[in-house]
Amino acid sequence: MKLTLSELASNVNGKVIGDQKCIIKGVSEIQNGCSGTITFLSNPAYNKYLSDTKADAVFVDDASLLNGKNGIVVSNPQFAMAKTLELFFFQEKSEALIDSSAKIANSAIIGKNVSIGAGAVIGNNVKIGDHSEIGINTVIGNHTLLGTKCRLHSNISIYDKVVIGNNVIIHSGTSIGSDGYGYVTVNNMHKKIPQVGEVIIGDDVEIGSNCAIDRGTIGKTKIGDMTKIDNLVHIAHNVKIGKGCLLTAGFAIAGSSEVGDFCTFAGQVGIAPHLKIGNNSVVASKSGITKSLEGGKVYAGFPAREIKVYNRRQALVNKIEKIRKDLDHLIKSKTGK
Amino acid sequence: MKLTLSELASNVNGKVIGDQKCIIKGVSEIQNGCSGTITFLSNPAYNKYLSDTKADAVFVDDASLLNGKNGIVVSNPQFAMAKTLELFFFQEKSEALIDSSAKIANSAIIGKNVSIGAGAVIGNNVKIGDHSEIGINTVIGNHTLLGTKCRLHSNISIYDKVVIGNNVIIHSGTSIGSDGYGYVTVNNMHKKIPQVGEVIIGDDVEIGSNCAIDRGTIGKTKIGDMTKIDNLVHIAHNVKIGKGCLLTAGFAIAGSSEVGDFCTFAGQVGIAPHLKIGNNSVVASKSGITKSLEGGKVYAGFPAREIKVYNRRQALVNKIEKIRKDLDHLIKSKTGK
Amino acid sequence: MKLTLSELASNVNGKVIGDQKCIIKGVSEIQNGCSGTITFLSNPAYNKYLSDTKADAVFVDDASLLNGKNGIVVSNPQFAMAKTLELFFFQEKSEALIDSSAKIANSAIIGKNVSIGAGAVIGNNVKIGDHSEIGINTVIGNHTLLGTKCRLHSNISIYDKVVIGNNVIIHSGTSIGSDGYGYVTVNNMHKKIPQVGEVIIGDDVEIGSNCAIDRGTIGKTKIGDMTKIDNLVHIAHNVKIGKGCLLTAGFAIAGSSEVGDFCTFAGQVGIAPHLKIGNNSVVASKSGITKSLEGGKVYAGFPAREIKVYNRRQALVNKIEKIRKDLDHLIKSKTGK
Repeated sequence: MKLTLSELASNVNGKVIGDQKCIIKGVSEIQNGCSGTITFLSNPAYNKYLSDTKADAVFVDDASLLNGKNGIVVSNPQFAMAKTLELFFFQEKSEALIDSSAKIANSAIIGKNVSIGAGAVIGNNVKIGDHSEIGINTVIGNHTLLGTKCRLHSNISIYDKVVIGNNVIIHSGTSIGSDGYGYVTVNNMHKKIPQVGEVIIGDDVEIGSNCAIDRGTIGKTKIGDMTKIDNLVHIAHNVKIGKGCLLTAGFAIAGSSEVGDFCTFAGQVGIAPHLKIGNNSVVASKSGITKSLEGGKVYAGFPAREIKVYNRRQALVNKIEKIRKDLDHLIKSKTGK
Repeated sequence: MKLTLSELASNVNGKVIGDQKCIIKGVSEIQNGCSGTITFLSNPAYNKYLSDTKADAVFVDDASLLNGKNGIVVSNPQFAMAKTLELFFFQEKSEALIDSSAKIANSAIIGKNVSIGAGAVIGNNVKIGDHSEIGINTVIGNHTLLGTKCRLHSNISIYDKVVIGNNVIIHSGTSIGSDGYGYVTVNNMHKKIPQVGEVIIGDDVEIGSNCAIDRGTIGKTKIGDMTKIDNLVHIAHNVKIGKGCLLTAGFAIAGSSEVGDFCTFAGQVGIAPHLKIGNNSVVASKSGITKSLEGGKVYAGFPAREIKVYNRRQALVNKIEKIRKDLDHLIKSKTGK
Repeated sequence: MKLTLSELASNVNGKVIGDQKCIIKGVSEIQNGCSGTITFLSNPAYNKYLSDTKADAVFVDDASLLNGKNGIVVSNPQFAMAKTLELFFFQEKSEALIDSSAKIANSAIIGKNVSIGAGAVIGNNVKIGDHSEIGINTVIGNHTLLGTKCRLHSNISIYDKVVIGNNVIIHSGTSIGSDGYGYVTVNNMHKKIPQVGEVIIGDDVEIGSNCAIDRGTIGKTKIGDMTKIDNLVHIAHNVKIGKGCLLTAGFAIAGSSEVGDFCTFAGQVGIAPHLKIGNNSVVASKSGITKSLEGGKVYAGFPAREIKVYNRRQALVNKIEKIRKDLDHLIKSKTGK
């Protein structure tokens, strides 16, 4: 596909600076820019690559950054790039195909235009919505419901009685609906508590590779609409995650804790059980949340505190050396008297 | 299924308070209580939900909590709930079935009443005990032994020469018997050390989703009886875990370390290699254990210390601000003289 | 197989101390030494087991350690052990076999002597080099290239357009080429950024169980030659890892960060996005790297600092108690005046 800068600009509602007719055949990273492509500047740390990039044009949010290069000025260069990637990499969905080696229960209801990969197994009374794709060797348990336009990659395990919304993407190796970690210890014997609850996953959720989302003990484990989950994330039984949350890699949340809407967790954060995390919380990487958080703030550390409190504590440690010195000086001056 | 409170009480050796004939058809969470169900109170943080719950009865350990509601008084409400769940959700095991697409080596010995799912593969000289279930697309390597009444879910990989006891539950995506992380570096070349040892898993062990348990280099990796392992847990080569341990999500233990009996690790704890952790250790979440621990105590932090030492160190930091202030005051008073 | 100490010594270029004709039939761990075997001493913590071990001979780097036992003196006992394990556990590779239930696209090019397990699926235009093995139920996406002598275990998912070198080992459950975690948030809506880049994995790489390696957004995610990756490791989109790195269990690196050559990361380390970690960095377990590191040093903590700085900060906290006491003494003496 070949497009002029002017055509690209109209796709993203942007303004061309420079050669309107410059031909763009693809996209590249600014630090590895290729001739014939467009790139973008969003993170200022990458501005230094602009002068040397071989890309022929750049999405920017400020014309002055271009410094003589061709470009397209937009309000959000990263978003313009995302739309341009869709343009260049638009995939005419290949004809839906149910592989002959897939095993589909007679009672399953499969929508229109559904693809099911080789070795996939679809259980009793499953419903799969129109235009959804089930990857190779993926397993869908009995009574599980899957919405429309979902894409489940390979080697995924969805247990029985899981409910998944529309436009949900799940990556390989993920397990959804496994038993919660629930035991009651009587006379030093750990007795398993039957895990008979459900998992409900909203619309527009994406879940990375090798995640584990447990079913409720009784009641439900819930992931809200538009929440995006990275790789290797653990969601325990009866957890509630609100809508629009960002849970990055290595995140783990213990049983029955609840996260509000639009919360962001950097990598490897942990949340103890039975807590409530308010809406719009932002939590720094590796934090360990041991008490409920009000929300609307940035938190860090273990135990997680408001980041300004955390930073002050960190700074306090830096003061100890000077305190010791001042004190010694004082003691000496006193003793010297 | 419908049961009276009185029938439920006799199942858990409890005492009815209120209407003996109250009909219970199921269970629910107290905060989402449903009419016609019984719920339970175990964690005092949930007591506040009692007055408004729509559940018709409550397991409690103290009659005075009921405040006019129907209930059953038992010594351990959580345990009573577990037994009641078993009652309501008892599953007549469906007839054992070996799917025609499962591939079973001729030399494998399959017990009575064993289920094997579609796409599962059972290697040479494998033995599977009576009443065990092998999930869809699960792979059992050559010479691996599996006890009776085990349940392996879908997409699990068990390597060659693994020994698994009776009543073991393994969740989807878990890998057992992969090579330990062992290299010897000679002239900047990392040479692989052959990993020819075994994995031995005791009776009544449960292992969550997407865990990784490596085989011994030489010798064995061992998981003791009744140890319960949550999701996304890493057990390195030659590790020994005692009996009755609780390893929660994100736990990782490095090569050759040994954990005693009845130890509890909260989420995301790490243990360095070649350490010994004594019996009955309890370790707070996110701790990093860098030295052997005597056991019988609670530990926290990085490096993990006895929690009272850890807490004192945390509190010390809080004192710095006041120290600086007192010192400044002293200096000022001296200078002011 | 039976070998004399003298034969074993010549295999590892070592010198026998004691009975040249002592017969060795296998290997064992020193603390669980078995009659008829050779063991090794490399970590001094295990020296205490020497006197009681039932092993008949020991690889050591210093003859004086033997204290009367038979042994072989070599420069690197662990390396000698690795070579001896290869000798005893050399596996005549079983005849290469492509299982009849494997599904291989017509356009795939399969090398000589390749094994493909039951239920494995090989996509369009895939190339698999000579002598490689594809495990049971493993999935290789379209246009993916795999070198010679690779070994992929069971239930692995390799997405489309991944390039894997020669002599690469990948353990069960690992996912390679899943979409990077990339969204652009516009008016509180998280829009997915198409992930159209690649993954390039060098020669002699080993990857543990249940890892997740994402493809580049645009451009490439790269793992350098001879890098060894443990279990449950997360590699985000556009990450570059140099050659000869050791990434141990629970390691997670965020998008676009770059790690130089011969870096070592102990367990559960995290790296924030867009950083550069210099060659020969060594990072202590559980560290969180939030700024680029120069390399050539040992780092620890959160945020990761040079370990001597980290240790000094830790030691400073220990001084607070004495400071408070000295200060109180001074105040008292002053007030007492």
